[in-house]
Amino acid sequence: MIDLYTAATPNGYKVSIALEEMGLAYRVHHLDLMALEQKNPEFLAINPNGRIPAIVDRDNDDFAVFESGAILLYLAEKTGRFLPDDPKERSRVIQWLMFQMGGVGPMMGQANVFYRYFPEKIPAAIERYQKEGRRLFEVMEAQLAKTRYLTREYSIADMATWPWVRTHEWSGVSIAGLPNLQRWLEELAQRPACQRGIMIPPPAEMTDEERAEAIAKMVTR
Amino acid sequence: MIDLYTAATPNGYKVSIALEEMGLAYRVHHLDLMALEQKNPEFLAINPNGRIPAIVDRDNDDFAVFESGAILLYLAEKTGRFLPDDPKERSRVIQWLMFQMGGVGPMMGQANVFYRYFPEKIPAAIERYQKEGRRLFEVMEAQLAKTRYLTREYSIADMATWPWVRTHEWSGVSIAGLPNLQRWLEELAQRPACQRGIMIPPPAEMTDEERAEAIAKMVTR
Repeated sequence: MIDLYTAATPNGYKVSIALEEMGLAYRVHHLDLMALEQKNPEFLAINPNGRIPAIVDRDNDDFAVFESGAILLYLAEKTGRFLPDDPKERSRVIQWLMFQMGGVGPMMGQANVFYRYFPEKIPAAIERYQKEGRRLFEVMEAQLAKTRYLTREYSIADMATWPWVRTHEWSGVSIAGLPNLQRWLEELAQRPACQRGIMIPPPAEMTDEERAEAIAKMVTR
Repeated sequence: MIDLYTAATPNGYKVSIALEEMGLAYRVHHLDLMALEQKNPEFLAINPNGRIPAIVDRDNDDFAVFESGAILLYLAEKTGRFLPDDPKERSRVIQWLMFQMGGVGPMMGQANVFYRYFPEKIPAAIERYQKEGRRLFEVMEAQLAKTRYLTREYSIADMATWPWVRTHEWSGVSIAGLPNLQRWLEELAQRPACQRGIMIPPPAEMTDEERAEAIAKMVTR
C-alpha cells in the first residue's frame, strides 16, 4: 500500500496518473493547501520542502519520497514499468522527464502565477513566461513529429508533462499550429488512467475561486 | 571520450564538476551564447531544447544527452560513482537532485533574471524569487543540519546544487543565519574538482558585462 499526499494540481496529477497506470494500491490524503496543511510538521517529516506530492511506501519500510520527478522514477523502478530497461532508451526518458521538471513545469507554473494569480498585472512578466511556455511546446512539437510519445514508447516522461500542457488555455499559452502536440494531448486524454488520475483528489466540492486560490498557493515555482 | 557543450553558467558547471570528480576524459566545446550558437542546427541535433549543457559520449555510439540532471544521472551510472547502489539512498539522492532541477535552479535563475538582467525593474517579481530562493535555502539548512551533504555521502545532488547556491550574492539571496549551508558551501569550495569545474570554460576573456549578458540569454528559466 502506498500513501499519496496530494492536491488537485498538475504536480499531484503526475503521481496519481502513474499510480493508476501501474495499478498500484494507494490511499489518497488530500492536503488542504489553503489551510497550509503542507507546512504541518507531520507532513514536513515526509517532505522537508513542504509541497505536494509526496508518497510513503508502506511495503518498503515506510520509505518516503518527495519531488514528483523522483516519485515517478521510484514507482517506475518499483514496478519495472514505463521506464525502459535499455540504457539508452532509459536515459532518453530521463532526459524528457528532466525537461519537464526544469522547464515545462516551472515555466508554465510561472505563467499561471503572473497570468492568473499575481496581485499586480505585470505584462512583461506574463509575456516572458507565456513566450517561454510556447517555446517549450515547440520543442515538444519537433520531438513528437518524430516519435509517437516524448520517447518511442509511453513513459513516465509523458505522464509528467501532460498535466502541465493540457491546461495550456488556463496558462494562456497557445497550441495552435502544433499538430503533433495536439495529437499527443488527445491520445493521452483518451487513456483511462489519465482520466482517473486527474480526478484525484476529486475536485467536485471546490468552487473555481477556491481552486484558483489553492493553486496560487501551490505554484510558487 | 566525452564531448561537453557548455558555457560559463551554473548549469554548465554542474557537468564540468561531475566530469572532474569522476576523472573522465572530455573535450570542451564552448558555445557562444551571445551569438546564439546554442540555436545552431548542429547543436539542436544534440539538444533539441537549444540550451547548454549537453554531452556526446563517443565511447557509447555517440550517444547524446541533454538536461543537466539527466547528464549527471547518466555519468553517475556510467562510472558507478556519486550515486549509491542502495535503492533507498539512491532515491534520496534523486529526490535532492529533483529538488535542484525543479526548485533551486529555476527559482535562483528567475531571481537572477529579475534582479540583474530584466529591462524593467519590477520589485514584486524580484522579491518573489529572492524570497523563494531563501525559502529553498532554509529547506537545505534543515537537511544539512542532519547530514553532512544533501544526503549522507557526497553525490551528484550536491554537484547539481552548489553552483546555484555559491553565487547567492549575485542573486541577492542571503545565507545569513544558515550555518550548515555555509559549512557545506565552504566544504565543496575546497574540493579540487569543484574548483576546476567552475573554470570550464575559462571565464578569463569575458568582461563582467559580457558575462552578465551571456548569462541573461541562458537564464530564461
